[in-house]
Amino acid sequence: MRIALGIEYNGTSYCGWQSQPSRCGVQDYLEDAVAKIAGHVIRIHAAGRTDTGVHAMMQVVHFDSDASRPDSAWVRGVNAFLPATIRVLWAKLVDAEFHARFSATQRSYQYLLANQPTAPAIYADQAGWYHMPLNVSAMQEAIVYLRGEHDFSAFRASECQAKSPVKHLQVASIKAHGDFIIFNFAANAFLQHQVRNMVGALVYVGNGKYPPEFIQQLLTQKDRTLSPPTFSPHGLYLSGVQYDNKWDLPITQRQLGII
Amino acid sequence: MRIALGIEYNGTSYCGWQSQPSRCGVQDYLEDAVAKIAGHVIRIHAAGRTDTGVHAMMQVVHFDSDASRPDSAWVRGVNAFLPATIRVLWAKLVDAEFHARFSATQRSYQYLLANQPTAPAIYADQAGWYHMPLNVSAMQEAIVYLRGEHDFSAFRASECQAKSPVKHLQVASIKAHGDFIIFNFAANAFLQHQVRNMVGALVYVGNGKYPPEFIQQLLTQKDRTLSPPTFSPHGLYLSGVQYDNKWDLPITQRQLGII
Repeated sequence: MRIALGIEYNGTSYCGWQSQPSRCGVQDYLEDAVAKIAGHVIRIHAAGRTDTGVHAMMQVVHFDSDASRPDSAWVRGVNAFLPATIRVLWAKLVDAEFHARFSATQRSYQYLLANQPTAPAIYADQAGWYHMPLNVSAMQEAIVYLRGEHDFSAFRASECQAKSPVKHLQVASIKAHGDFIIFNFAANAFLQHQVRNMVGALVYVGNGKYPPEFIQQLLTQKDRTLSPPTFSPHGLYLSGVQYDNKWDLPITQRQLGII
Repeated sequence: MRIALGIEYNGTSYCGWQSQPSRCGVQDYLEDAVAKIAGHVIRIHAAGRTDTGVHAMMQVVHFDSDASRPDSAWVRGVNAFLPATIRVLWAKLVDAEFHARFSATQRSYQYLLANQPTAPAIYADQAGWYHMPLNVSAMQEAIVYLRGEHDFSAFRASECQAKSPVKHLQVASIKAHGDFIIFNFAANAFLQHQVRNMVGALVYVGNGKYPPEFIQQLLTQKDRTLSPPTFSPHGLYLSGVQYDNKWDLPITQRQLGII
């Protein structure tokens, strides 16, 4: 049987999603906890890998098991074996054709940036930070260039293993809220560090170092070495994964709440 | 000279505000960092003590020093010696009559409660949690009883050292926001654990165990042993401290903006 899970985690204490020899990945903790309920070794597949320190409001994963358990066992039972900063939100028996990664049609990320003179203390591990006032209008003008299908090589980590740098960015928007700026992105798929690199470039527009058209230039030049530095992982949240309705999954999209 | 500081901290890694022999209090870290800039031992006085795990969006403190430093040294200099989860927001030279604790006329707290089937992972250390749906209307009806001047003995920790259990609660309100419920309180002063005890009692109204009038009964009975249990420190935030305008302090009030 194939089971899908909706997962939330605070990435602060983990070395990213992916399993590591030292067992510090979110995947390691989740595989160990699910194995306790299943009674056998479990291999978990996720919709998207997240880097060290990156959070997930909504990650979708799947695994195969012969163990017949009620959905509540895959939620509350597994949660009983997880650290408090990883939680299973829901579990659902799915068709054997479903694959958390390959069936996903869109991933969404939010980036939370504290824009204030002092680094955030309460959000030290849950927000990026820029100390000088940013021009949000200029950033909103710049982010439009990123929308649509582009070769995102300028925003690609050198170690990125994606087959193609061409991705279709369906959502790219920015909103200021008090001392925070929230970036919203959604695409069929993302390159490694793409969101953090796009945020870094947009911040360099917001601080006046470059005009909004700089983003267009970066896309055209396709050269990572010409781009501003990668922004902090602390502000990055995987916020949703979209699938065809035929899989009939519970909620797979969440977002930061603005009070 | 007397210097006032506005402070923000994430209480997760500390054993509360107060200095401890093991030096695990926020006060210990702050005194050590300020001493590095002042060049002498520093004793810091805070507007209010916070318990282990409780956060402060805005704590106000003061200290005396003969060292003449620009305000920026008391902010950026001190921050350079603090852990990332404690930050000085501002510094200001104040009149020698000013006292962070005794000059304060009002303290404000917010309590962030996740009301969802699964405990919050990203906010594991930054929110309280109740798993069953709460009736916010009933809680809003109940909280009205707490407003005004009352003997709050029913909500007082046994080890509380306050001279009187009578306090004047000027603000007591509740608002639901998505899966979160936010409680707002402001009073001239609070008893130890008072906010966490009031939240605990209100949750027992919200879950239907007691009617809203239960809060009135608790106030009348003045008996802590009849009250519901103290709620988690993780959801509690000191959000502001009010002073007379004559002290001419920078911002001393903040509020939750993003969840």
